[in-house]
Amino acid sequence: MADSIKKLQDLFSKFPTVGRRTAGRFVYYLIHQPTQTTDELIAAIHELKKGVKLCAWCFNPHETSEKLCLICADPSRNKQQLCIVEKEADLLTIEASKRYKGLYFILGATLPESPRLLDLKKRVSAGNLEEVIIAINSTPDGKATTTLIERTLKELPQKLKITRLAQGLPVGGELEYADEETLEGAFEGRK
Amino acid sequence: MADSIKKLQDLFSKFPTVGRRTAGRFVYYLIHQPTQTTDELIAAIHELKKGVKLCAWCFNPHETSEKLCLICADPSRNKQQLCIVEKEADLLTIEASKRYKGLYFILGATLPESPRLLDLKKRVSAGNLEEVIIAINSTPDGKATTTLIERTLKELPQKLKITRLAQGLPVGGELEYADEETLEGAFEGRK
Amino acid sequence: MADSIKKLQDLFSKFPTVGRRTAGRFVYYLIHQPTQTTDELIAAIHELKKGVKLCAWCFNPHETSEKLCLICADPSRNKQQLCIVEKEADLLTIEASKRYKGLYFILGATLPESPRLLDLKKRVSAGNLEEVIIAINSTPDGKATTTLIERTLKELPQKLKITRLAQGLPVGGELEYADEETLEGAFEGRK
Amino acid sequence: MADSIKKLQDLFSKFPTVGRRTAGRFVYYLIHQPTQTTDELIAAIHELKKGVKLCAWCFNPHETSEKLCLICADPSRNKQQLCIVEKEADLLTIEASKRYKGLYFILGATLPESPRLLDLKKRVSAGNLEEVIIAINSTPDGKATTTLIERTLKELPQKLKITRLAQGLPVGGELEYADEETLEGAFEGRK
Repeated sequence: MADSIKKLQDLFSKFPTVGRRTAGRFVYYLIHQPTQTTDELIAAIHELKKGVKLCAWCFNPHETSEKLCLICADPSRNKQQLCIVEKEADLLTIEASKRYKGLYFILGATLPESPRLLDLKKRVSAGNLEEVIIAINSTPDGKATTTLIERTLKELPQKLKITRLAQGLPVGGELEYADEETLEGAFEGRK
Repeated sequence: MADSIKKLQDLFSKFPTVGRRTAGRFVYYLIHQPTQTTDELIAAIHELKKGVKLCAWCFNPHETSEKLCLICADPSRNKQQLCIVEKEADLLTIEASKRYKGLYFILGATLPESPRLLDLKKRVSAGNLEEVIIAINSTPDGKATTTLIERTLKELPQKLKITRLAQGLPVGGELEYADEETLEGAFEGRK
Repeated sequence: MADSIKKLQDLFSKFPTVGRRTAGRFVYYLIHQPTQTTDELIAAIHELKKGVKLCAWCFNPHETSEKLCLICADPSRNKQQLCIVEKEADLLTIEASKRYKGLYFILGATLPESPRLLDLKKRVSAGNLEEVIIAINSTPDGKATTTLIERTLKELPQKLKITRLAQGLPVGGELEYADEETLEGAFEGRK
Repeated sequence: MADSIKKLQDLFSKFPTVGRRTAGRFVYYLIHQPTQTTDELIAAIHELKKGVKLCAWCFNPHETSEKLCLICADPSRNKQQLCIVEKEADLLTIEASKRYKGLYFILGATLPESPRLLDLKKRVSAGNLEEVIIAINSTPDGKATTTLIERTLKELPQKLKITRLAQGLPVGGELEYADEETLEGAFEGRK
């Protein structure tokens, strides 16, 4: 196999969810594309690295020349609510649902050693928040992270309402197969 | 293939989740079991049909000589709460979680034409209930059934609290992949 | 839960591919069937155990009052070909394909300690066979069994053609994902 | 969402097997990589498009300054055997198995309208081939392509052996679940 095929396959193999076989398919796909397509791809990667930076407040990637992202800079957002998420994709899912109009903070990782925990503390200390919603997956790592954040925020002098997203039955889920903890959430949160 | 093999395969094919191939495997399994095992199976089916009847109040299958099942007859259960479920398996899942101590009513089907809707109305009219929890799957059929039950119960003169199980993120579920309605439930029910 | 429900659930749990939850669904299915259906089921199990016996030659279950099954007794079958299979379901699949017109021998297990290996030796010794086709899955256990049968049959004085089913690409399978051994079979057997 | 994020997500969405959500994960992955990694990626794509061309004989991508790929140029390969495959990944799988030492021809598509059918005809006409192995998946499209190639090659004046890969049971496959056509191949090719 040619060296540059192998080299590119190696790089694609490091993409999330991509194994060597799929990485190989990506390379052959690019081989068969016109140069115009690969030029576009290269230009888009350049643009991304040049134009996109993380918001100075919430760490959401954005492309304006400003320090703050469009959400943080939006005067119509509720500055008294903060929703802490693990990663950008979670923010996008919540934004897509159009049910939340406050600010975000992207933690960047679930592990307790997230380097942004200190930043979070600063933001909350300096802000004028009424509620912090911890929207982190209830996986083992996620739960540990949630507990750590709760403990950290409770040490602050602010009077804050700290909440978690409700646990319950997902739409379309079957009660018969629900685990005990999910069922407990579903009964406790009934209304 | 021998006639009685085919006959038994036909009967097993009607069991829930069983296709013809699996039904065939069941038959060959029985062919190779000692007669003692099939005698036990036959005796257990006999016992089931002779001894098990549906509770006169909640339709839960039970085996006592009494009219009421062990749950309905249990003086320690909270007689002011009623949980409506679709089928026995749902009741068993809820009982296994040990989070609910009231009565049940097994609807027997999700479709609006459930023949037990009238029975449900009678039970609620005659009872001394404070809360009715509708614990029916949020599938399209289940939602229609829930709506129908709510409407039916609201027409009764009783002052009843009618609740549904909370929708939200199941334990271990990933926020990124949550649908809009589940996410809405998770935000609304946060605490 | 009622005792006879639990008892029957235990018995169904031992059926192949059936877990406790599915066994429970079987029990509730039977509870809700009319007695006529369960009577039919019981009668069919009785018939099966009374009427079905294993063929004295090939171990195929059959229901005639004769010693031999319908395949072994069929004068139109080729008595010079023998196909060794692991279990009844394999025989049924081969019969359904209508590509084979010889005799069968059901081994009953893949493990080398199959108690029928001695029977197989006797059948082949006494018969007038020209070809023995070993039609056993190429799983690790199956391969060990195939090797053992080959060795056993080669020790016999008969002049026998001993064959295995061809390895190759299954219909609809993708070459890209074929393992090395399958591909080797596909190249060697090309025509 | 920033424009260059969306732009790059669009381009990744066109990669084989990649949906919008996965494309989004690729973009966020790149945002969080150091510039060195994206520079490497860009360089590798450049190299690929500059250095890799299709072999003038077999259409296998290669990187030498020569017209022929390393396989076509290799004097130790058997020039009397030609293996026709649909795509590069099939060639790689066959090469990895080390069971074939002849030449290849990459068709580039299964559909009858493959623009390389004419090229194939020229190669076979001009060559000194003894055998052409058609190694195309036995999917409906693949079968139609195989038939078309056979018909095309049989019209040539050359005396050629035209073969197909053997159909049969894949290693680890279960006889019980084999389809009729696979089973037919397995019986016919037995040895």
